Amino acid sequence: MMTFCIPELNRSLEGSLKQKIDLKTKPIGALGDLESLALRIGLIQQSLSPSLNNPHILVFAGDHGIAKENLVNPYPQEVTYQMVMNFLEGGAAINVFARQHQLALEVIDAGVNHDFGDQPHLIHAKIAKGTANYLNGPAMTLAQCQQAMQKGAELVDQVYQRNCNVIGFGEMGISNTSSAALIMHTIMGLPLEDCVGKGTGANNSLQKTKLQTLDKVIHQHNRIDKKNPIQILSTFGGFEIAQLCGAMLQAASRGMIILVDGFITSAALLIAEAIDAHVLSYCIFTHCSDEKGHAAMLDHFKAIPLLQLGMRLGEGSGAALAYPIVASACAFLNEMASFDSAGVSKENQ
Amino acid sequence: MMTFCIPELNRSLEGSLKQKIDLKTKPIGALGDLESLALRIGLIQQSLSPSLNNPHILVFAGDHGIAKENLVNPYPQEVTYQMVMNFLEGGAAINVFARQHQLALEVIDAGVNHDFGDQPHLIHAKIAKGTANYLNGPAMTLAQCQQAMQKGAELVDQVYQRNCNVIGFGEMGISNTSSAALIMHTIMGLPLEDCVGKGTGANNSLQKTKLQTLDKVIHQHNRIDKKNPIQILSTFGGFEIAQLCGAMLQAASRGMIILVDGFITSAALLIAEAIDAHVLSYCIFTHCSDEKGHAAMLDHFKAIPLLQLGMRLGEGSGAALAYPIVASACAFLNEMASFDSAGVSKENQ
Repeated sequence: MMTFCIPELNRSLEGSLKQKIDLKTKPIGALGDLESLALRIGLIQQSLSPSLNNPHILVFAGDHGIAKENLVNPYPQEVTYQMVMNFLEGGAAINVFARQHQLALEVIDAGVNHDFGDQPHLIHAKIAKGTANYLNGPAMTLAQCQQAMQKGAELVDQVYQRNCNVIGFGEMGISNTSSAALIMHTIMGLPLEDCVGKGTGANNSLQKTKLQTLDKVIHQHNRIDKKNPIQILSTFGGFEIAQLCGAMLQAASRGMIILVDGFITSAALLIAEAIDAHVLSYCIFTHCSDEKGHAAMLDHFKAIPLLQLGMRLGEGSGAALAYPIVASACAFLNEMASFDSAGVSKENQ
Repeated sequence: MMTFCIPELNRSLEGSLKQKIDLKTKPIGALGDLESLALRIGLIQQSLSPSLNNPHILVFAGDHGIAKENLVNPYPQEVTYQMVMNFLEGGAAINVFARQHQLALEVIDAGVNHDFGDQPHLIHAKIAKGTANYLNGPAMTLAQCQQAMQKGAELVDQVYQRNCNVIGFGEMGISNTSSAALIMHTIMGLPLEDCVGKGTGANNSLQKTKLQTLDKVIHQHNRIDKKNPIQILSTFGGFEIAQLCGAMLQAASRGMIILVDGFITSAALLIAEAIDAHVLSYCIFTHCSDEKGHAAMLDHFKAIPLLQLGMRLGEGSGAALAYPIVASACAFLNEMASFDSAGVSKENQ
């Protein structure tokens, strides 16, 4: 069993950071959530002058056994590999937003049901060609699950060694809102119907079938140990979700800022939190997805997301879109004048 | 009396724009508010491939007669000119965010109570050294009001002639939340207490005095014609608000995209809307300010703001922070692959 060592957030600079923020030429608190964001970044980096270095987005792709039956997904399973090709060719939303904000983008085959050959820009980390169908048994073996988490952690370490200190995570995998809903239901204990949404756009009829199918899955696995995050992860799977989970834990272990995207990445974070709750100190929640369960997940994390734009695309698109706001928080802390330095009068006494 | 000629939004491209958006490699609607934003930008520019050119932020500064009594403002009137100097020296929040996003920043003396001398980077458009105190009479004469609106319009035209097609507006003026609250109350008809907030940070005692003072002002001017926006503007003033109003009307006349900031700029927009409601078609609402009345103003405009970060700084800071999101809307429309071009399968039939 792999272990992670996530340091508890050191709050010793909190007073100095607050003072620095309050002496900027603006009314106290007038930059709202940007101020708490700047404080958090300063604490993560243990610095009064934090900086964002070599930002990356890692997009993990994987296929799901359940997808072949088209019971939960409006798009066919092939769309996973087709979208991976689209990522590699630069035509997806995440490519556009990553280019716009100069975020290095890495695309990882965590377990897509396709032979990519030697695509030079794809990171080959395939655990298997898709998970098993959880209608019949666990989506993956414990060994596969740990291998996937380990791989995710290794990939983060490679990025970390390139001086990256802020990392966003995204995913692609037809049917993976189903995995995320099953994980959410099992860990958070909410009724299944509160966890199951439209995914990529199920119509009402398909959404009903999706809910019925996932209800069967829950009954099939009714002996699952709800306190065993690895068992939950391996049962409901997603190789991309398992790699995400390992990646997040390792990013926090390295003291990196984690940009959390939407529903699927938040499900990976639920598992990561159950393994080591300290991971949350390193997370910035970038947006609230329009996918049904996400708002409740954010409540669970006590998170106030930076954006609420009704998006539900995955790919790390919310993380990429919100990146400039994170950069703005650093920038005002580093670059704004103070009342003294600018010769601006303070409040009337 | 100056006139503006704002073209009604031509919706003839709406179908083609929607089709282009829907054929991008993403589930229908998955980019949420970015999709409606892209549609709007395409309609404003009458183009399936819109672009944002030479973006500008114009910050108008002005002083208010009422400020000298310290009945409504926690900071002394001198802070207006001190902050203008801070803008010119690059140390304010708006400087930081404008630099970050490469927005050209122009700072305008609309009527600050200070002799700036020949500051080369300041735009000198002073109507007078602060407005008159509206406790005693109108804040400005009708002639001053029209001169200010004209000046705002001219400044926008100068920017327009430099090939700018997207413009954000900000302001600085100690006491100007009071002007904005008086305008809001008069035009929207809401109770004064729903329009009066803490401004730059009034404590409870000062906020009470502020409300009592503004209540006196309303009674003093109880014969105002609520259907006469120019009279409302000249009575409750703000030279910066009047220049903003003329600037917004002219920007819409030129078919530019207007980035609306917070409480004060929205009050200017209330006046502009009363003059010509077509102005709203060109407006993108960048954020919801934490200043008390702003959410109700946004409701009035039927606006869904891009950001809700609890900010209340003015200066155009929300407009600058939200700019990358506007750019993202253009970018996905121009750069994302379509299902056909990327060879991605569509939904199951």
